[in-house]
Amino acid sequence: MKSNFADRLANACRTKKSITCVGLDPRVEKIPQSLMTGTSNKAIAEATGIFCKGIIDAVADIVPVVKPNIAYFEALGVEGIKVYSSVCQTAQDKGLLVIGDVKRGDIGTTAEKYAAGLLGTGGENTLANHDAITLNAYLGSDGIKPFIDEAEENGQGMFLLVKTSNPSSAEIQNLKLEGGDTVAEKMAELVSGWAERLCGKEGFSSIGAVVGATHGEELFKFRKIMPKSPFLLPGYGAQGAGAKDIVGAFSSGGNGGGVNASRSIIFAYEKNNNSDYALAARNATIAMNQDLLSALENTGNGF
Amino acid sequence: MKSNFADRLANACRTKKSITCVGLDPRVEKIPQSLMTGTSNKAIAEATGIFCKGIIDAVADIVPVVKPNIAYFEALGVEGIKVYSSVCQTAQDKGLLVIGDVKRGDIGTTAEKYAAGLLGTGGENTLANHDAITLNAYLGSDGIKPFIDEAEENGQGMFLLVKTSNPSSAEIQNLKLEGGDTVAEKMAELVSGWAERLCGKEGFSSIGAVVGATHGEELFKFRKIMPKSPFLLPGYGAQGAGAKDIVGAFSSGGNGGGVNASRSIIFAYEKNNNSDYALAARNATIAMNQDLLSALENTGNGF
Repeated sequence: MKSNFADRLANACRTKKSITCVGLDPRVEKIPQSLMTGTSNKAIAEATGIFCKGIIDAVADIVPVVKPNIAYFEALGVEGIKVYSSVCQTAQDKGLLVIGDVKRGDIGTTAEKYAAGLLGTGGENTLANHDAITLNAYLGSDGIKPFIDEAEENGQGMFLLVKTSNPSSAEIQNLKLEGGDTVAEKMAELVSGWAERLCGKEGFSSIGAVVGATHGEELFKFRKIMPKSPFLLPGYGAQGAGAKDIVGAFSSGGNGGGVNASRSIIFAYEKNNNSDYALAARNATIAMNQDLLSALENTGNGF
Repeated sequence: MKSNFADRLANACRTKKSITCVGLDPRVEKIPQSLMTGTSNKAIAEATGIFCKGIIDAVADIVPVVKPNIAYFEALGVEGIKVYSSVCQTAQDKGLLVIGDVKRGDIGTTAEKYAAGLLGTGGENTLANHDAITLNAYLGSDGIKPFIDEAEENGQGMFLLVKTSNPSSAEIQNLKLEGGDTVAEKMAELVSGWAERLCGKEGFSSIGAVVGATHGEELFKFRKIMPKSPFLLPGYGAQGAGAKDIVGAFSSGGNGGGVNASRSIIFAYEKNNNSDYALAARNATIAMNQDLLSALENTGNGF
């Protein structure tokens, strides 16, 4: 069994001196044409895998974690799912933690089955090997407990959607409840309760939260409600958030989670006169690492 | 292109004189041992497919719609996904509408990719052929619009989680907002707005809602907020709801959606001294049809 996910995440961040998570959203339309060996479904899925593995090779020594998003693979059918599984495996083999961005959510036996497929260690019976996955908890604790049980067995973790980075997240998540809290804050309270389980040696739980980096000031509030949850912070880069927007999530020693960027890293080659996509991704990652590290150091929370 | 999904659903209910949706939740542990030809991943996945197709054959002439739940297939790895796709195809070939219970939810390009994989008609590029899918709208309209766009092209539909059937649904969905509405009611208002699109000739939209049949009285309220949305009503049978609990969703001519039952139909054979599972499922379906139809007739809303 692997050791506690939260500990593994904190350790990986410290070792690599990075809180960057590279999001693998391999939009077929933007993958370098040179990787395409044909127009068949299989050829496109294979090119997608080669692209992702090229990115993984280019960043494996400088980031703690990658986050492949299964939607881009599901859109390539069964061949895409095979490639997804293989990409996750490659990332783990290169020493990276893998957060599967699957945003599942269901109840009872169904949640148990999702948990088995996405957090299991059942070989062929497992859809892909993940260190953690993203989940949607709109259905309440019935929908989360089966995932926690499964994660506990295997030293894995999860990131629950609390406040997402997109503009329309406000439609439900910002609604004001009687008493003054928002729906997202109430979701954060639920997460904080669940995060009493799966706590590691470093003070963090393996039950984390997705909190958009696009809501800078609010981060301090969410951190206060969920003191033990690592945050997965989307929104940096293409979605407009900067390093100064994420500092509220982190405490001393760079502890607190990871900042995700997808498009601004994996498609950085488009802004570099279509240079080597892997090298462009590495350079964009180095720049992001430095940007984030400076911001952490400015608040006294660097490594 | 197929005609409007809401019209196809209403027409199928009328033709079959049934508002029953058979949920295909093929929990491996409960599939008749006689169907297992081996213990390999592939053998188990194949047995799962044979089981589901047996159920489909047994109910195809007496129900309008089936709802395979992808979680049970994902837990069998890539082989399971292949079988899921094949089960959906078989159901469509037998004249059934297929609601893929996938409960996805994401934003922007990612939502577009989920929509392409789950509502596309791209052959190998499509994960499975669905007439509609279930979705989670916690992320707001950014997460739903790409699915509506895709569904519009192909005459498909969707059912958005509003108020789920499980006990802990209250934790988020029943929270009271300033002004007195609950979160679920606000979600219902959003759905009602989205349901202005994809309207069919019979007054219903292809943008429906999941409302648990376990909340009988509340159904009237949700129907009032979402007059144009077909309801997918889980909770009948194993989860404890009865025919009297669902009438609030339906109007004249049996219009209003479908009532789902999974375990109480597909595993009915367990209560019949392990008789023929398909025949037991058919008999359980006939009983459910009659039960629901009587309740509709009692309110003057029968076919």
